[in-house]
Amino acid sequence: MGLWGGRFQGRSDRDAWLLNASIGVDQRLAKQDIKGSIAWAEQLSQHGILSPAEHEQIQNGLNQILDEFNAHQFEFQAGDEDIHTAVERRLYEIIGATAGKLHTGRSRNDQVATDFRLWMLDNLPDLVSAIRDLQTRLVERAEGDLGVVMPSYTHLQRAQPVLTSHWWLSFFWPLERDILRLKQTMDLCGVLPLGSGAVAGTSMTVDREAMAQALGFDSISQNSMDAVSDRDFVAQFLFNASLCAVHLSKFAEQIILFSSSEFGFITLDDAFATGSSLMPQKKNPDVFELTRGKTGSLLGLLTGFMATLKGLPSTYDKDLQEDKQAVFQAFDTLMAIIPVFSGAIVTLRINADKMAAAIDPSMFATDVADVLVRAGIPFREAHGMVGEAVKLADETGRGIHQLSTKEWDAIIPTLNLDLSNVFSPQESIKLHSMVGGTAPQAVSVQINTARRCLNAK
Amino acid sequence: MGLWGGRFQGRSDRDAWLLNASIGVDQRLAKQDIKGSIAWAEQLSQHGILSPAEHEQIQNGLNQILDEFNAHQFEFQAGDEDIHTAVERRLYEIIGATAGKLHTGRSRNDQVATDFRLWMLDNLPDLVSAIRDLQTRLVERAEGDLGVVMPSYTHLQRAQPVLTSHWWLSFFWPLERDILRLKQTMDLCGVLPLGSGAVAGTSMTVDREAMAQALGFDSISQNSMDAVSDRDFVAQFLFNASLCAVHLSKFAEQIILFSSSEFGFITLDDAFATGSSLMPQKKNPDVFELTRGKTGSLLGLLTGFMATLKGLPSTYDKDLQEDKQAVFQAFDTLMAIIPVFSGAIVTLRINADKMAAAIDPSMFATDVADVLVRAGIPFREAHGMVGEAVKLADETGRGIHQLSTKEWDAIIPTLNLDLSNVFSPQESIKLHSMVGGTAPQAVSVQINTARRCLNAK
Amino acid sequence: MGLWGGRFQGRSDRDAWLLNASIGVDQRLAKQDIKGSIAWAEQLSQHGILSPAEHEQIQNGLNQILDEFNAHQFEFQAGDEDIHTAVERRLYEIIGATAGKLHTGRSRNDQVATDFRLWMLDNLPDLVSAIRDLQTRLVERAEGDLGVVMPSYTHLQRAQPVLTSHWWLSFFWPLERDILRLKQTMDLCGVLPLGSGAVAGTSMTVDREAMAQALGFDSISQNSMDAVSDRDFVAQFLFNASLCAVHLSKFAEQIILFSSSEFGFITLDDAFATGSSLMPQKKNPDVFELTRGKTGSLLGLLTGFMATLKGLPSTYDKDLQEDKQAVFQAFDTLMAIIPVFSGAIVTLRINADKMAAAIDPSMFATDVADVLVRAGIPFREAHGMVGEAVKLADETGRGIHQLSTKEWDAIIPTLNLDLSNVFSPQESIKLHSMVGGTAPQAVSVQINTARRCLNAK
Amino acid sequence: MGLWGGRFQGRSDRDAWLLNASIGVDQRLAKQDIKGSIAWAEQLSQHGILSPAEHEQIQNGLNQILDEFNAHQFEFQAGDEDIHTAVERRLYEIIGATAGKLHTGRSRNDQVATDFRLWMLDNLPDLVSAIRDLQTRLVERAEGDLGVVMPSYTHLQRAQPVLTSHWWLSFFWPLERDILRLKQTMDLCGVLPLGSGAVAGTSMTVDREAMAQALGFDSISQNSMDAVSDRDFVAQFLFNASLCAVHLSKFAEQIILFSSSEFGFITLDDAFATGSSLMPQKKNPDVFELTRGKTGSLLGLLTGFMATLKGLPSTYDKDLQEDKQAVFQAFDTLMAIIPVFSGAIVTLRINADKMAAAIDPSMFATDVADVLVRAGIPFREAHGMVGEAVKLADETGRGIHQLSTKEWDAIIPTLNLDLSNVFSPQESIKLHSMVGGTAPQAVSVQINTARRCLNAK
Repeated sequence: MGLWGGRFQGRSDRDAWLLNASIGVDQRLAKQDIKGSIAWAEQLSQHGILSPAEHEQIQNGLNQILDEFNAHQFEFQAGDEDIHTAVERRLYEIIGATAGKLHTGRSRNDQVATDFRLWMLDNLPDLVSAIRDLQTRLVERAEGDLGVVMPSYTHLQRAQPVLTSHWWLSFFWPLERDILRLKQTMDLCGVLPLGSGAVAGTSMTVDREAMAQALGFDSISQNSMDAVSDRDFVAQFLFNASLCAVHLSKFAEQIILFSSSEFGFITLDDAFATGSSLMPQKKNPDVFELTRGKTGSLLGLLTGFMATLKGLPSTYDKDLQEDKQAVFQAFDTLMAIIPVFSGAIVTLRINADKMAAAIDPSMFATDVADVLVRAGIPFREAHGMVGEAVKLADETGRGIHQLSTKEWDAIIPTLNLDLSNVFSPQESIKLHSMVGGTAPQAVSVQINTARRCLNAK
Repeated sequence: MGLWGGRFQGRSDRDAWLLNASIGVDQRLAKQDIKGSIAWAEQLSQHGILSPAEHEQIQNGLNQILDEFNAHQFEFQAGDEDIHTAVERRLYEIIGATAGKLHTGRSRNDQVATDFRLWMLDNLPDLVSAIRDLQTRLVERAEGDLGVVMPSYTHLQRAQPVLTSHWWLSFFWPLERDILRLKQTMDLCGVLPLGSGAVAGTSMTVDREAMAQALGFDSISQNSMDAVSDRDFVAQFLFNASLCAVHLSKFAEQIILFSSSEFGFITLDDAFATGSSLMPQKKNPDVFELTRGKTGSLLGLLTGFMATLKGLPSTYDKDLQEDKQAVFQAFDTLMAIIPVFSGAIVTLRINADKMAAAIDPSMFATDVADVLVRAGIPFREAHGMVGEAVKLADETGRGIHQLSTKEWDAIIPTLNLDLSNVFSPQESIKLHSMVGGTAPQAVSVQINTARRCLNAK
Repeated sequence: MGLWGGRFQGRSDRDAWLLNASIGVDQRLAKQDIKGSIAWAEQLSQHGILSPAEHEQIQNGLNQILDEFNAHQFEFQAGDEDIHTAVERRLYEIIGATAGKLHTGRSRNDQVATDFRLWMLDNLPDLVSAIRDLQTRLVERAEGDLGVVMPSYTHLQRAQPVLTSHWWLSFFWPLERDILRLKQTMDLCGVLPLGSGAVAGTSMTVDREAMAQALGFDSISQNSMDAVSDRDFVAQFLFNASLCAVHLSKFAEQIILFSSSEFGFITLDDAFATGSSLMPQKKNPDVFELTRGKTGSLLGLLTGFMATLKGLPSTYDKDLQEDKQAVFQAFDTLMAIIPVFSGAIVTLRINADKMAAAIDPSMFATDVADVLVRAGIPFREAHGMVGEAVKLADETGRGIHQLSTKEWDAIIPTLNLDLSNVFSPQESIKLHSMVGGTAPQAVSVQINTARRCLNAK
Repeated sequence: MGLWGGRFQGRSDRDAWLLNASIGVDQRLAKQDIKGSIAWAEQLSQHGILSPAEHEQIQNGLNQILDEFNAHQFEFQAGDEDIHTAVERRLYEIIGATAGKLHTGRSRNDQVATDFRLWMLDNLPDLVSAIRDLQTRLVERAEGDLGVVMPSYTHLQRAQPVLTSHWWLSFFWPLERDILRLKQTMDLCGVLPLGSGAVAGTSMTVDREAMAQALGFDSISQNSMDAVSDRDFVAQFLFNASLCAVHLSKFAEQIILFSSSEFGFITLDDAFATGSSLMPQKKNPDVFELTRGKTGSLLGLLTGFMATLKGLPSTYDKDLQEDKQAVFQAFDTLMAIIPVFSGAIVTLRINADKMAAAIDPSMFATDVADVLVRAGIPFREAHGMVGEAVKLADETGRGIHQLSTKEWDAIIPTLNLDLSNVFSPQESIKLHSMVGGTAPQAVSVQINTARRCLNAK
């Protein structure tokens, strides 16, 4: 039994039917579909379209179907084109002809838009929680690794010494922005389209605001033609998911780099590494590589859906059916990746000695320049002088900390500089004490700020 | 004179230098670069790094350069690698060696991030205004075309009659969401990175909060490693721009369709149409086709930059230099397209008779079903019965409004239905009177709501 | 039993293991994996690494597993990380310890690259066949509809009359290019990577050319580091698939347009149309809308995988595991869509009268201009004159065929033109008789050329 | 003077005109446009549409314009909408009214498609040459660095020793595939659309095959509706360019990694490195980072254009105008990047000692396993045993080469193995001697094969 056969003479072509059917994907909306129908039936009843007895029948029937889904006992049938058809078919089986009254004044167009937004509202909080958990692990590591110093990099070249805690926290803030974006997307989802009918609005009297409240929406849509085709919330979520994945991918990139033999800053726990079928010595960071790889795929989901959206000629077009597959895949991917990060971060070992050893003396060049600046030399000149010192050291196979006073004096003629305190990671780090800097006290402030974010819910 | 030559022996390879130089693109940040430098110098002065005299010199010099840019008299030179270099080079020319003190404690990494965010804060309001203007035109058309009826479409098949005003407003709400998104992106931009140095934070004492206030930022960044590489605001803007373009593209698609001979609902003013070099009769909607085409290109900018972001191994990497070209192109494209929409909408002619003529009787099928529903027949059965009526009418080359009472009775045995009022667009439209529906009173409410949005700033 | 546990102490984290496992996707390579292993064992035997008895054991075991897969009786187990592990695990169960000799000198890196290329070589011909079938239907329709005239469109505005056969064939040639591209991709796949080991080449003596021949490859890879990470063939196939989908999407777009009430050129058979749950009269072209929608998703697969490829730091990285999901989805989507097109095209009804009625007189404007040209007026002037005639006709609510001789003479002063034969679709069509034009004789030539392509295999 | 004003009453809206005009981009097609017009005029003359005198006039005029372009003396005017208009406008200025005869039987639709394909045929060989030059540098480095050993990596973990020459050549083969793809795209471009008119074919008698030959095309298009809208060649080139960029990006990634302090395998020449405005010691691989970044942008061009193509409703639509900007940007980007690679590769210094030092003993684990295999132990067991040895060595802070015979015997009970020759990079490398392997003799074969590719043109 389908929902639309009346005017049709022939049967569907089998290939066409299979292409058209969405039940394989949208069955995941089952609970939301039933919740939406319960709210709809409530309104039909309130406004006399259903008698109290009919309403009770329908409500009980829907609740029974909900129980069947919850108990994983719902049985799909070959003719179930989509989740809406499947639920209505089952309702007929349970309560008979009254089932046919449920769809009054409603279309699958506003129904699926409602179901899908409801699914987002039900599920995005889990994603937020997973991110929050990862952020918590980051703050904990920042607290635990406070004494450890490491080189920072720009252009993948050693730049300046930083606290490892500062590095950990540099992954906290992108995730904080991701959460803000997800919340903005949840706000966007909180606009109820139900009552928009197929395109022109419902022809029945219903209280849309009351439905919104009953279903947990914040407000109702203002234009039915827009409401049935608006998938901004899908695009926005796919963007959020992609950007979050980009953040994780960049994090993954650094873990992969830092667990290479050449860097050696990090040792992954065996539980989060993988071996080689050929090379017995290998210990590979597969899950982090997969994070990078899957980030590409997530970007593809965003791009693909935007390209689909771009081409729509009217209000609701069937092209939109591609929306759910994309969202589910993006959601599932992040929900698979993020806990692995949380687990891996907690268990990985920081090799503080290797980090410290990687802070080479040239990394204090800026600090030397700052000494000159404090002695009155314009920074740009100081930069040039220290550059020369680096060149001299390079050419003679030394570090700049090994240049003699005489050599320094040749470069910086008029000053007698004391550079004795400069060539120390701790001293260098301490200099960067403004908010957001890597000095211990600034990092402590940062940890407190991060903790406040976590506690803000 | 470059900003970094000290340690280098050879000259740059010419091809490499050209590839590396960004001045062709980032010169557009000139004013923001200078404003940022003025704020920075203020802090260097406040904290004793510049003497009052030096500060005055630098400030005057920068203001003079700003004047030169405003008067389009600034002259770039062959060696200007980027806008920062160009400004500092010029400052040297004007005030001499003191110019070398400006870059103290600062890096191009936090500088360019600041310039770029400032550019967004300076320019996105213009985009919002352009959208607001287009929205205003839409509301005006909705008000002006209130009596006009037209068919609505789903799947590009005629669905139900609607008010043309309702159709106009269906493009208002997506733009309203676009504006919300742009404002959220402006909030995201309002976090000052200045004071993050190259990566570890600045080594100078400065009041970052004061700088934020001076430059019009809301808050300051919390982690220097994140701050110098964070381009979330770029990705988010490119997404906003792409989605806004998708909305315009869909609008364009409908204008193109509706101004085809087959639809004939709309006649573009000659000022917004184009001819053919071969076919003298042609009047083509080129600017709307270009909107569709450029939407693809905008999606490419988003995709491309996300792919670039994904691959970064450290904090600041030069890959990020691709950010500005993408933003400028997206911004300029929208600023070129939107005013054309505003102009075209105001001047296009609605062909109300063709719209009315396109409302064929089968479009009242749902209304007939609703009559049956009100007579107690479950909607699903009613839907089937009317489907049969449609089929019968089709087979006999008539509309359903032409079926005889006898024929109706054969399909719906037990009821004596009065369908005399059903086959009227006005009656059909009136039925959809809930908020967001197409009934005149609902559309009036909608116009008021839209006006409130416009007035909300 | 995994393939790499030796050096590891702890067990895998459950989340990490699930993220890492690819068996859900790559089990589709089962037959290719076994064929590859049989060819590999043959070489190990030929060069004395396996004794004849061991070889026979392994070969028999692999053939038994192949039978199990063919009979859908192979049972996967929870610990099967990927298809290679699953097959080797089963081989152990069947033949015992000798199974451990199969992986000698081989890595999963060259193994999976071989399996995947083999899968392409095995399956792409099916896609080519499906396209060939669709092309055949197009040629048949072109032959069957030879007398039917219709308007052609540029910018979706009526342009010039054409034969419907010409329109049908305009979809033949893009598919012809798609087939050429697929064949070029098959050539690219026909380079055997087996024998590249993990990265440095195999350490065993094997005859790679002989393996290539045995497995149906054309040649062997020349650099092991490239061979294990080269996924050009994946990207190229995803591009081929996307572009083919773009062609189908554009075709779908026209079918959707032409089956709208406003065009009315085409009536889809009920077997290839879908109804509405709310509106009983609706007959929607869902499968064609889905084609458009899925084309977006396919473009996403291409984009996503390219973004993934872009970020690889070494030779084989686990990111590459995303390759198979993308290829399978792209392949399956096309294999689902194309037969629906073939079926729908055969069964759809052309409404020749509506097509003819849509050829309005202004469409002969170019032909009028050509008459002037033949009378010696430069085309550019002729174009202007006819443009004026169109304007005059428009303003007076007529077609240009209704202008009086006097009116024409006012526009074109010096000539006495006979336009009596111009305003006929058949006459207009006949004028375009060069190769590739729409004149009947040119279309006949075109059909013959198309038939030759089909017969060329 | 425009090409289409006749039927229009009002003037173009200024914003609309600016959006529509393409002269800023398509002026780059000037020479091709003129060449195409000369070939067209030749046909008009051959078939009596132009008199010999008119033909001579037009040809001389066009040649004069060509000279003006070649001498950079052509002056564009404000009203030049596109390159076709500009050339025709100038032709009028030079030869007067006869200029109006040139466009007879031709449309800008087939004209621009011809110009653009011709541009590809004219310019892609330069790109091929640039790639060939880079390949030549790679082969020269492979020849020059033949004795140098280095670690190879999978998953960015050290895998097995290889020859540096082998590594260099691993970038040769992807470029070889890029060249094949570009040539296939040139073949695709070599199909002449001229003579397709606006959409229905030309109405004039012309010899299209003769034009094809005159202009250097291989064949002519078979269907005018397809020919004016076919942009497969654009999509295919953008794909080729993207994939080529992906190859360069991966190469760049390795250069960036290998020139980090931690790897230290490579020292870039100063001419191809860049400094920091803040940190005097920095020497950054900016051009390689930009390669990665620009690869993202190129992928965006492909994606964007495919999304644009997807949405076309008819034959020629103005959306297609986005094609040229994308192609020019992709072409220019590659032509800017590739020579920098060629230059950088020639001048960079290989630090052979650091490479050798990075070959740690665990990288011989597979070789040890191979020894066990040759002694009759199944590889899978051997792999497990060596894995245990690696674990034991790890736990005791040694390399596996430092395990005592007794320790080995405890792991591999029954064999008295001589491992003395195993722990040598040279020995390990020699073992991989099959075609495509890293053994010196295999690499020599590979160099010869590569040289043959270079000589093949």
